[in-house]
Amino acid sequence: MVNLATRRRTTRVFAKTPIKFEDVLYCIKAAAQAPSGANRQPWRFVLVDDPKMKGKIRAACEEQEKRHHASVDANLKQWFGLKNITWEKPFLTDAPILLAVFSNQKMPYAAESTWLAIGYIILALEERSLSTLTYTPSYPENMRSVFNAPNEYKLETILPIGYSLDSKPKEPRRPFQSSVYRNLWNVEM
Amino acid sequence: MVNLATRRRTTRVFAKTPIKFEDVLYCIKAAAQAPSGANRQPWRFVLVDDPKMKGKIRAACEEQEKRHHASVDANLKQWFGLKNITWEKPFLTDAPILLAVFSNQKMPYAAESTWLAIGYIILALEERSLSTLTYTPSYPENMRSVFNAPNEYKLETILPIGYSLDSKPKEPRRPFQSSVYRNLWNVEM
Repeated sequence: MVNLATRRRTTRVFAKTPIKFEDVLYCIKAAAQAPSGANRQPWRFVLVDDPKMKGKIRAACEEQEKRHHASVDANLKQWFGLKNITWEKPFLTDAPILLAVFSNQKMPYAAESTWLAIGYIILALEERSLSTLTYTPSYPENMRSVFNAPNEYKLETILPIGYSLDSKPKEPRRPFQSSVYRNLWNVEM
Repeated sequence: MVNLATRRRTTRVFAKTPIKFEDVLYCIKAAAQAPSGANRQPWRFVLVDDPKMKGKIRAACEEQEKRHHASVDANLKQWFGLKNITWEKPFLTDAPILLAVFSNQKMPYAAESTWLAIGYIILALEERSLSTLTYTPSYPENMRSVFNAPNEYKLETILPIGYSLDSKPKEPRRPFQSSVYRNLWNVEM
């Protein structure tokens, strides 16, 4: 777990430089070792490297984002403006590989287990000097058909994976003390 | 990320041996560097080392588990029997430290972000040769009062942390190939 505090691997701007397939497989293998509810391993991974498929995914997501951006309240609209977030998702075609992560909704603690495993993926990517972003389209249930995924699977996230070209500094974190209590809520460490 | 495939850190049996406070803080600091929805950092951590508080938590959880075990269907009852899982949760008082993790339900992707951060904690514990178990009581909303947590916070998990005395081997994982597809569902890598 290298330099967690200083390195920044959440990025929105990716180099088109190819990455090693093997590095991505390593990260998925790490994820598959995560604990899960009743050890049911509810996760499934779709590794996307076909440019046509990336284009289809981007088009489906952007259609959703247009709809979502038109529907958000003033506060969120302002926040999007502040962060330069629009309906456009170029990282979905720029990143050399997308990793779509699904969870089987019929299994116990499916989402919890799958997001825990996504934490493993992000740290494993970090270890290989790769960048990502935990992007979730606004209407994930509409993405099933794009991937031919069965009905019981929910798309949890699409991780674009590649080398970062993002010059934005790491987002600041809350002071550590304000997130941790000792024995009871609001009792400082 | 050391020996993910071979080491086993999910355990139900803990040594009462004290652990370094500093090691647990390291793991929480790692978690606090995780990405989160709109960078809202919805997680809060309660580190429990007071034996009286651990006793209260165990009593509250076991009361819930008795209720839960009485209510489950035949399939789950059989699985509990197979795994030797009862309503008793001795790890909640045996483990030298409990780490309760809460998420603020008012924040975007609160549960997802928090479970991703829990993945960071588990790998950080692994790095320090510590063991844990992602235990979630059956009625987490009833645990708020035990911790004095505000209404908008949900208890996601209680991680007992310590050295393992568990002789049980690691639970097997699905063959890797059956969890990963390429470009489309059911297309093998």
